[in-house]
Amino acid sequence: MPEFTATIETALESLLEQKKYNTIKDLLTTMNPSDIAFLFEDMAEYQQRLALLFRLLPKQLAAEVFVELEVETQELLITGFSDRELHDIINEMYVDDAVDLVEEMPAGVVKRILSQADPETRRTINEFLKYPEDSAGSIMTTEYVDLSEDLTAGGAIEHIRETGLDKETVNVCYVIDNRRKLIGAVSIRSIILARPDALIGDIMEDNVISVATHEDQEEVAQMFARYNFTVLPVVDKEQRLIGIVTVDDAIDVIQEEATEDMAKMAAMSHSDKPYMRLTTFEIWKSRIPWLMLLMLSSTFTQMIISGFEDALSACIALTGFIPMLMGTGGNSGSQASVTIIRGLSLKEIELSDVFRILWKELRVSLLCGLSLCVVNFAKLMIFDQLGVAVALVVSGALLATIIVAKLVGCVLPLLAEKLGFDPAVMASPFITTIVDALSLLIYFALAVMVLGI
Amino acid sequence: MPEFTATIETALESLLEQKKYNTIKDLLTTMNPSDIAFLFEDMAEYQQRLALLFRLLPKQLAAEVFVELEVETQELLITGFSDRELHDIINEMYVDDAVDLVEEMPAGVVKRILSQADPETRRTINEFLKYPEDSAGSIMTTEYVDLSEDLTAGGAIEHIRETGLDKETVNVCYVIDNRRKLIGAVSIRSIILARPDALIGDIMEDNVISVATHEDQEEVAQMFARYNFTVLPVVDKEQRLIGIVTVDDAIDVIQEEATEDMAKMAAMSHSDKPYMRLTTFEIWKSRIPWLMLLMLSSTFTQMIISGFEDALSACIALTGFIPMLMGTGGNSGSQASVTIIRGLSLKEIELSDVFRILWKELRVSLLCGLSLCVVNFAKLMIFDQLGVAVALVVSGALLATIIVAKLVGCVLPLLAEKLGFDPAVMASPFITTIVDALSLLIYFALAVMVLGI
Repeated sequence: MPEFTATIETALESLLEQKKYNTIKDLLTTMNPSDIAFLFEDMAEYQQRLALLFRLLPKQLAAEVFVELEVETQELLITGFSDRELHDIINEMYVDDAVDLVEEMPAGVVKRILSQADPETRRTINEFLKYPEDSAGSIMTTEYVDLSEDLTAGGAIEHIRETGLDKETVNVCYVIDNRRKLIGAVSIRSIILARPDALIGDIMEDNVISVATHEDQEEVAQMFARYNFTVLPVVDKEQRLIGIVTVDDAIDVIQEEATEDMAKMAAMSHSDKPYMRLTTFEIWKSRIPWLMLLMLSSTFTQMIISGFEDALSACIALTGFIPMLMGTGGNSGSQASVTIIRGLSLKEIELSDVFRILWKELRVSLLCGLSLCVVNFAKLMIFDQLGVAVALVVSGALLATIIVAKLVGCVLPLLAEKLGFDPAVMASPFITTIVDALSLLIYFALAVMVLGI
Repeated sequence: MPEFTATIETALESLLEQKKYNTIKDLLTTMNPSDIAFLFEDMAEYQQRLALLFRLLPKQLAAEVFVELEVETQELLITGFSDRELHDIINEMYVDDAVDLVEEMPAGVVKRILSQADPETRRTINEFLKYPEDSAGSIMTTEYVDLSEDLTAGGAIEHIRETGLDKETVNVCYVIDNRRKLIGAVSIRSIILARPDALIGDIMEDNVISVATHEDQEEVAQMFARYNFTVLPVVDKEQRLIGIVTVDDAIDVIQEEATEDMAKMAAMSHSDKPYMRLTTFEIWKSRIPWLMLLMLSSTFTQMIISGFEDALSACIALTGFIPMLMGTGGNSGSQASVTIIRGLSLKEIELSDVFRILWKELRVSLLCGLSLCVVNFAKLMIFDQLGVAVALVVSGALLATIIVAKLVGCVLPLLAEKLGFDPAVMASPFITTIVDALSLLIYFALAVMVLGI
């Protein structure tokens, strides 16, 4: 909503100039935390003004806005906070958000945050910090409602009314036994729809799908996508309930992982920060390693071409088709690799499918190769008016290149998955470099054979 | 969960052979609809067996499994259904799922479906069909709970208990006035936590964010990602509530759009079907158009090379660097274009940022270009032992190529967005073709100038 933010921004600025703080407060209170955060980000250059605006927010809203801000802006604000203000924000936040904050801040700030947190909050934060990054444990929250199976529906509603006020979600409650083992789940909807004297044990769903604390966050997110959940329980090795992951965090993971895959496919390292907030130097750092590596690895193609210098001088027209061959090879390879990489990440493809995939890609590459070959041959004969021999060499090399490219393009990501690497790294640029070298070798070998040069 | 599905599959097969249908029924009833659908898909080749298994499912579970199946499998099953069976399935389904089904089926099957639907369901399906594809209206459901603001919390719970049984979600209820205008939202949580005699009008949130029926589904999905909603109300032009979109549909849209963007970036048209179910011919159809176009457009690079044939024969070493120049140009361009395309689709970048983006990319391209240039120059002098003149020509062309590639890579997606096309089409392969031609022109022009050939 760019237009919308722009108008509010102008209004705010003139209200600030007129020092109409009460009006500003009323105005901000009508807005959604995400929108306020978005607005504040655009003002982050004016630290004074930002702190002033932030202090106008009611406590609860302030905490909600705070977690939506960028790490840099959060740090900027914390530096300006009094201990009292920091205390209020930290203890108003959901625990999983507080953990995120602690993970992102430099050590000095973390110390201040922990010293201002309530003992209970501090204990939970410390406990959370032991889970590996990007695991289910690291994105879960402990603010869920648990029930025992011998409670009645009416009793459960009473229990929720007493304890549920602080919980991040009460749409689904979890049923545990006396050793905290997860034995069922029951939606608020079923509790309300049940007769007040019905037993939770009778209305609960007892086949609960749960995840382990160490499960990768990408796997967890895919489970949300597959099962249409809004919340998923997290259990330890003894099947004891210790937290929940909510769907909003799963959406963030899904978006982030897709962005990361796209960045890797385009030979970049990935950053969590939005593009407009990255400095020139940060962008350079994310892009230069692969560019450098790929530039240096093109020494191979350069050496192959030098090796066939005599053949090229004998038939200089052959040079003109090098870009076409390499381009088509690169495109064919990246079509196959991107398809496989995305299929793997959506779990539509499994490693055990490798032979079916190879067989499929072989047939596709033959179909694609032959179609392109026929058109290319006709073009060379009619439009370029080259001899049959040259046309055969170019078209033959084209067909072989496409087959090689498609097979390399599907095998490398599968191999990466098998070896436990991220398949996305095996995308277009990497494959293009390999296919470039192979296609030139095929091209020159054919030229030497057919043209006898 | 590949291993898991495999074991259940083996168990099912031997149970089928032993004709232990009651055991199978009990086994299936313990499973999640998505898992059952996954299992059934793997058996889709055996139509008889599939129909047999499907008939073993209880009515409600059968409907839930049915909506998770692929279109082909659904059609297969419907063909085998009796009118009675079809009737049960259709009327057990949520209306938005029934609409999806009607949209995907061939005309003959649609006629049968509509004839078996209850009058109420048929009316709703017909109404839904008027919304454009990929709009909020097309993915919404009408199964929500609405309340009036003068109801008490206790009365609301009573109302939900009476009417909520069929609703897809009752986690959030919407408050409407007597002309059905949306005036507020209230979560089940707040209703339960409120005193039973509190008025809905007092506990409701009155700043409700809603979407219009014709809103693009991608925009709607981004709102879920941004605001952490689990449900979003859909209103018509007069702000009257007519449906809701739930978060599970938003996740599907987010995944689908990311997959579509990746396919377009790799020069393919996108298909909704998973890779393993596509026929060779369907894959060929999605890949050949861009391959053909890009192959034919390389005629430009071929013509440029022919135009400089004399220069190339004079200094044949220059040929060896063509792949390096074009490769680095292609990679630099796709880094910029993929960054911009993803930024636009996540709304992190706006069209009005165009000059800031150009300025940023210019600086990044200078940094990247100079780093690569220095390394490349050193390599040419020390490793390849070429003269200063040739090293200058190659390195100079490299720098110019990178700058051109980065600028073209960020301008083209922005231009596409401005003109209302999908920016993803302007990704790597398209940009590579343009950059290839430009980099060769720069390279040869420099060679002629510096080397005087």
